[in-house]
Amino acid sequence: MTSALPPIPELRQRIAGGALTHASLIEQVLEGASAPAAGHVFTRLYPDAARAAARHADAMQAAGVPMPPLAGLPVSIKDLYDVAGEVTLAGSVACQGEPPAPRDAAAVARLRLQGAAIVGKTNMTEFAFSGVGINPHYGTPRNPADAQVARIPGGSSSGAAVSVALGLSVGALGSDTGGSIRIPAALCGLVGFKSTQSRTPRDGAFELARSLDTVCAMARTVEDCLALDAAIADTPLVVRRRDGVAGLRLAVPTSLMFDGVEPAVARAFDRALSCLSAAGALVTELPLEELTEIARINAPGGFSPVEAAAVHRHRIGARRAEYDPRVAARIDLGMSVGAADYIAMQDGRRGWIARMEAALQGFDALVCPTVPITAPPIDELLASDEAFFKANGLLLRNTFAINFLDGCAFSLPCQAPGELPVGLMLASVRGDDARLAAAALAVEAALA
Amino acid sequence: MTSALPPIPELRQRIAGGALTHASLIEQVLEGASAPAAGHVFTRLYPDAARAAARHADAMQAAGVPMPPLAGLPVSIKDLYDVAGEVTLAGSVACQGEPPAPRDAAAVARLRLQGAAIVGKTNMTEFAFSGVGINPHYGTPRNPADAQVARIPGGSSSGAAVSVALGLSVGALGSDTGGSIRIPAALCGLVGFKSTQSRTPRDGAFELARSLDTVCAMARTVEDCLALDAAIADTPLVVRRRDGVAGLRLAVPTSLMFDGVEPAVARAFDRALSCLSAAGALVTELPLEELTEIARINAPGGFSPVEAAAVHRHRIGARRAEYDPRVAARIDLGMSVGAADYIAMQDGRRGWIARMEAALQGFDALVCPTVPITAPPIDELLASDEAFFKANGLLLRNTFAINFLDGCAFSLPCQAPGELPVGLMLASVRGDDARLAAAALAVEAALA
Repeated sequence: MTSALPPIPELRQRIAGGALTHASLIEQVLEGASAPAAGHVFTRLYPDAARAAARHADAMQAAGVPMPPLAGLPVSIKDLYDVAGEVTLAGSVACQGEPPAPRDAAAVARLRLQGAAIVGKTNMTEFAFSGVGINPHYGTPRNPADAQVARIPGGSSSGAAVSVALGLSVGALGSDTGGSIRIPAALCGLVGFKSTQSRTPRDGAFELARSLDTVCAMARTVEDCLALDAAIADTPLVVRRRDGVAGLRLAVPTSLMFDGVEPAVARAFDRALSCLSAAGALVTELPLEELTEIARINAPGGFSPVEAAAVHRHRIGARRAEYDPRVAARIDLGMSVGAADYIAMQDGRRGWIARMEAALQGFDALVCPTVPITAPPIDELLASDEAFFKANGLLLRNTFAINFLDGCAFSLPCQAPGELPVGLMLASVRGDDARLAAAALAVEAALA
Repeated sequence: MTSALPPIPELRQRIAGGALTHASLIEQVLEGASAPAAGHVFTRLYPDAARAAARHADAMQAAGVPMPPLAGLPVSIKDLYDVAGEVTLAGSVACQGEPPAPRDAAAVARLRLQGAAIVGKTNMTEFAFSGVGINPHYGTPRNPADAQVARIPGGSSSGAAVSVALGLSVGALGSDTGGSIRIPAALCGLVGFKSTQSRTPRDGAFELARSLDTVCAMARTVEDCLALDAAIADTPLVVRRRDGVAGLRLAVPTSLMFDGVEPAVARAFDRALSCLSAAGALVTELPLEELTEIARINAPGGFSPVEAAAVHRHRIGARRAEYDPRVAARIDLGMSVGAADYIAMQDGRRGWIARMEAALQGFDALVCPTVPITAPPIDELLASDEAFFKANGLLLRNTFAINFLDGCAFSLPCQAPGELPVGLMLASVRGDDARLAAAALAVEAALA
């Protein structure tokens, strides 16, 4: 399989109509997962469990029992989620030999409860610590959007995105600390939804940065993302659907988010914005200079390096040679930060969130490119640390602002056919997930 | 006035019966607050506001309007609470000249909403950073329990306790980070209630240690404490009253809490425990060796020094000479702690809480002396840093364990007439406030 599956409702209809069974779909997926195109996408497959879930869904369907939306459908989980009895590696080799997980991560357990056929664990940036998706231990899944040039998939949920793009899952459980769901979704032409952090349980997810880590998913469509979100959060968002985008109040920040934007990204974004305006969306440019303060607040070291240092300091002390040096370099940045500086960062962030929330009052969403560049070639970033860290900074910049806000955001594809994927990010404040989902459904339909 | 007021219900009855008016009570209190016996108790008085509240309560009473329990009654507030328009000093001189508070602290505002007559701000350990109650800037209120020897009142809510003990308030809003409500309550023969931290709002309370600071109060009786707690929390605890202590399951920890206990404290505590046993309480000795782990978890620096360092580092940099050197010494301990160590302390605490909660399952309360010593003479602790820090460590040890647990606790007087005050601490886990209050009411009645 080398193209994405149909959206979940369509897939379910085809199964209900007899064109396909859950079991045959899973066989297709397992075959595709072992094909060369899927190289480096999965770190582990679960053929028996996936087949069992599919057979059960077929049997329930035959018995006429109503089923939850994910029942029997292929779903992938990122390598950083605990599965009972396995050592959780999180894309590393430095965790090999550690004790196995005593139970499934909460999000994994909830997907199983919904009957999802978990086909495998997906590759990722080591310890989720970059937006690029290059992994020196397990290889780098190639971005399926370009058949000529081997481009990065984006990260850290790299294999997650490629599993959806190649039709090896209807949706992928990933995580988003600085953009790890939205960046690969944007670069691979998918929809990613980073919910408000507190919406979903983090138990059994390998920690990167406790203040920011969000358990969330990506899929083909907003609707499919909401199906995964409902399972992971154990409760659906109550979305009041809008009739089109007319009257939707969108804020386009003129600070930070467009710095260094690539012409191809600017073109796709402007085209999308014009389309939304023409359909009646109310687009307002907003200075939002608060965005330029993030760097100052994080100056003592940043949440991710500091909190990752707390997670890794003993392991990295004992097994440094097994770490990706580019990941180790970022963890090292957090090692020497003082507690008082860390607490000051927390206070600075709290005040910043309050100012941002005030500035965004009266808007349904902030809108900007998810990522200011299209996917760079893998080789260029493998060859040079400078190119790697420069690209990583650009990849993470816009998405990270929403993690820092403790907000919620969708990335929606907005490129034209034949163009490299470009993501349009719709974002809002903490707890505004349901209203943002309504906006995302309307924007997705308007851009289609 | 040199002895405590009657409990609130009795006082209200006397007012309802015409033996007293709110206004006359407030006049008595204001007069007493300026008498020599009340030296160093208040840092500021609010005669006009207190009189206005009292007159209003008298008028409402005359009009036959039902009133909340604190209406028109004298209440004191600790010097660390914001009062709109005043610089909050928190027992220091190092904050003089800083901007005034824009509004009342949430707890103060809620007391005012209940009609309480706030008579004044009470003296405290500088920045709430010791359990002793000595203040080099505003003097040390003398413990009223001993007419011969000038003993410490305990701290940090020193003036708070003495305001109640001298009959200058029916209850005192204080705070408890490591025992600052319970220690002075124990040493002055009062009841102190440290609620679960999340029960009450911390807005407008000068921060000592954000992980531990609890906004709470002390009074004459458990019932009176619950009246103040209901006002501060803006909702009363729903207490299912017990018929006596029969069947009450009490755990007496054999680790840590009795180390270095003074014979007078041991005698009073054992007598109380025998009395409770005789009345049918089920007393079990519990090793609870978890208590000995606290020191190890806090070894990198402890929550209070680290979090206080974040609050004070800029101020202490600029105004070190204005700090009590004994307070500055403890803040300095937190300055050099790293963020990763701080995060490890948080994780260590979280795991410890889980183990403690498991160990305490099946018990209604843990019971031990609030403080293992009776109040030492002020002079001895003024004279020697060594004596000061040794006493401070003993004063805080037992109470701090419950802050570390994020639990709730009462200190109840258990000394015999003529003895120096001794506190019996009843404590339980996070959120167990209502059940603990029922136990405290029953224990108080049994000991009476």
